[in-house]
Amino acid sequence: MDFIKDLDGGFSVIENLKVSGAREGKYGVSIIVSPNSTASAVFTSNKVVAAPVKYTKNALKKGIISAVFVNSGNANCFTGEKGIKDCETLVELVSKDLDIPKDEIAISSTGVIGREMPIDIISKVAYESISKLGNNAENSLAAAKAIMTTDTFPKECAVEVTLTNGETVKIAGITKGSGMIAPNMGTMLSFIVTDAEIPSDEINKALKKAADISFNMIVVDGDESTNDTCLMMANGSSGVNVVEDGKLDPNFQEGLNYLCIDLAKKMARDGEGATKFIEANVCGAKDLEDARLAAKSIISSSLFKSAVFGGDPNWGRIVSAIGYSGCDLNPDIVTIAIASDLDEVDLVKDGEILAFENTPNLERAEKIMQSKNVIVNIDMHLGDGEATAWGCDLTYDYVKINAEYTT
Amino acid sequence: MDFIKDLDGGFSVIENLKVSGAREGKYGVSIIVSPNSTASAVFTSNKVVAAPVKYTKNALKKGIISAVFVNSGNANCFTGEKGIKDCETLVELVSKDLDIPKDEIAISSTGVIGREMPIDIISKVAYESISKLGNNAENSLAAAKAIMTTDTFPKECAVEVTLTNGETVKIAGITKGSGMIAPNMGTMLSFIVTDAEIPSDEINKALKKAADISFNMIVVDGDESTNDTCLMMANGSSGVNVVEDGKLDPNFQEGLNYLCIDLAKKMARDGEGATKFIEANVCGAKDLEDARLAAKSIISSSLFKSAVFGGDPNWGRIVSAIGYSGCDLNPDIVTIAIASDLDEVDLVKDGEILAFENTPNLERAEKIMQSKNVIVNIDMHLGDGEATAWGCDLTYDYVKINAEYTT
Repeated sequence: MDFIKDLDGGFSVIENLKVSGAREGKYGVSIIVSPNSTASAVFTSNKVVAAPVKYTKNALKKGIISAVFVNSGNANCFTGEKGIKDCETLVELVSKDLDIPKDEIAISSTGVIGREMPIDIISKVAYESISKLGNNAENSLAAAKAIMTTDTFPKECAVEVTLTNGETVKIAGITKGSGMIAPNMGTMLSFIVTDAEIPSDEINKALKKAADISFNMIVVDGDESTNDTCLMMANGSSGVNVVEDGKLDPNFQEGLNYLCIDLAKKMARDGEGATKFIEANVCGAKDLEDARLAAKSIISSSLFKSAVFGGDPNWGRIVSAIGYSGCDLNPDIVTIAIASDLDEVDLVKDGEILAFENTPNLERAEKIMQSKNVIVNIDMHLGDGEATAWGCDLTYDYVKINAEYTT
Repeated sequence: MDFIKDLDGGFSVIENLKVSGAREGKYGVSIIVSPNSTASAVFTSNKVVAAPVKYTKNALKKGIISAVFVNSGNANCFTGEKGIKDCETLVELVSKDLDIPKDEIAISSTGVIGREMPIDIISKVAYESISKLGNNAENSLAAAKAIMTTDTFPKECAVEVTLTNGETVKIAGITKGSGMIAPNMGTMLSFIVTDAEIPSDEINKALKKAADISFNMIVVDGDESTNDTCLMMANGSSGVNVVEDGKLDPNFQEGLNYLCIDLAKKMARDGEGATKFIEANVCGAKDLEDARLAAKSIISSSLFKSAVFGGDPNWGRIVSAIGYSGCDLNPDIVTIAIASDLDEVDLVKDGEILAFENTPNLERAEKIMQSKNVIVNIDMHLGDGEATAWGCDLTYDYVKINAEYTT
């Protein structure tokens, strides 16, 4: 898609935006200041919802956000009335220090559940973060780093999108964690800012569409967090309106999809303990829903994830995972291939097994399974449904990280 | 329940029953001969179904089974027409050698998917097994051993049930693997024989009820096999009919439930790589379905399973797992306790956290988490729904076993 151009510098590509990040031990604070932005967000569907999620849902009712406060180290979840009060305290701190109306500030947290927020230390880190606010690549990176928990690398993306009328807008985002539908302990948090003009209800629609094919299609361990948040702001600094006659420019949607998929893949790649990245492409499913079920079931199978870790081209586990996903499947006509960046080989073609012991196909498959990126391509030959899901292998280190994570 | 008495000896407690087991390398064959038994079974709901499952579903239409052939080492799944032919070949072998009508023979397999059955070696082991048929405790144990794959111990149970009218009947069973709804690679297979008289449609109803609160409530890794089978036969050798006026004796149902729960717990305890056994008891749920969802979600959470392995009383992961299970939950009134065989401690009581850092409750909780049996007790205070699920911790060895399992 030549109307989407990758940019360096994360949030720094957006005008009229300041960001910062600071950290002390396990507690980090990122601040994003984007004055008078239209905004919307998608949140966890877990019935146990952290205080900042409740707070921010309410703050978003007005549709205008000027600043976002994010902390790592404590999820402020299962903390009752005190949790909401702590949100108010931190929002007030930002409001006073930056002279921004309280009701235009969103708040987001990630970390341990069921512990009161250590307000003193988080306030201290917050002041430090605010003092560093700026609009350059280092600041964006610092913000991406301050929200990390068990993440091993910061995750940013920025793009320039050429609209159908030839004008350009930019979108930038940072993320942490490992998945909206099925994130690991660390919670998935994503913050996206565009310089386009776009009403908050259109942001909501566009963000839901993008999240559905990106954050909602990655799985690390099937656990869904209490704090998951993906918040998007549009500050209009480009002066370009991307909604004309009530219709969102399709190139803008594509650009947002691209950005969200990029961020989601980075999360899957950084799944706790991961050594390999897995992509499952399903086509020929009965319909879209079936394709999504099949792709996510492959990515979620502990058995297949362990096989990828071990480098075992165990297509029996792939077909079994599709079989219990709930989608329609005719094993007699399915095609299963695996691929790396260098090679692709059919394991099963139109229901016929091609990768028996001592066959060239199995030998090639074994080599493919050694690569860092393992791609599974399924054609179910039943209809037009297509979907892609991303994940990672299940490793000793996943168990280690989660066995040792302190309550 | 004093009308249920544990018995030693497995299948040997049932009259008019012969069993045997033999093994050569990874290939094992168990034979169960129970002439002219009424029979029924429950099977995997995976859409990819192994040849022996298709074969046995058909064989059961008549409702009479006299012998069961079971092999380990090859699942005979994804093997097309050849797979069904191999079932016929093995059934014919049993039929000729034991003079049993072909249409009264069931067949069941567990092992690798997508490889043709090595008929020569399996036939050889089958003949050896048949030559050993007998009715004693050693034979029952040999049968339980021959169906093992990654299991670390054989699983048997036998009970005597005193009916409401004072008469007694016996039920015995063997099992392998780790779960009907969510089994590990090894597939769950269970074979149960009773000396009661009971029509096949009543067996079907009773078996479904028992499976629902036993095999369907254990989870090892969430993967569901293509071969799962639980088959029950009634040979009537006690001369006692357990159905009167179209009603199954409730004590018989309780006895069958007891036996199935015992076998299911043994499977959960023997989950691949498991070092600890987990029991999740949920009460006070809105309804039965909600209680089942919550209990199974706790048992299935990779995060909580890793925490159990590490001995971390991470109740945040318990509450999060309930929160995304889909059941109704009010975090403000929930009670969460954990227990070992020696102690029980509240972590959260009526929504209030009692296990903060450096509290006596947390210290006791940490000790409890070191025990071999970790019990989670949840009261949701919303209704009458109650359910129990069983599972095991997620360990380095789970990953090791499944990373190294050969395709």
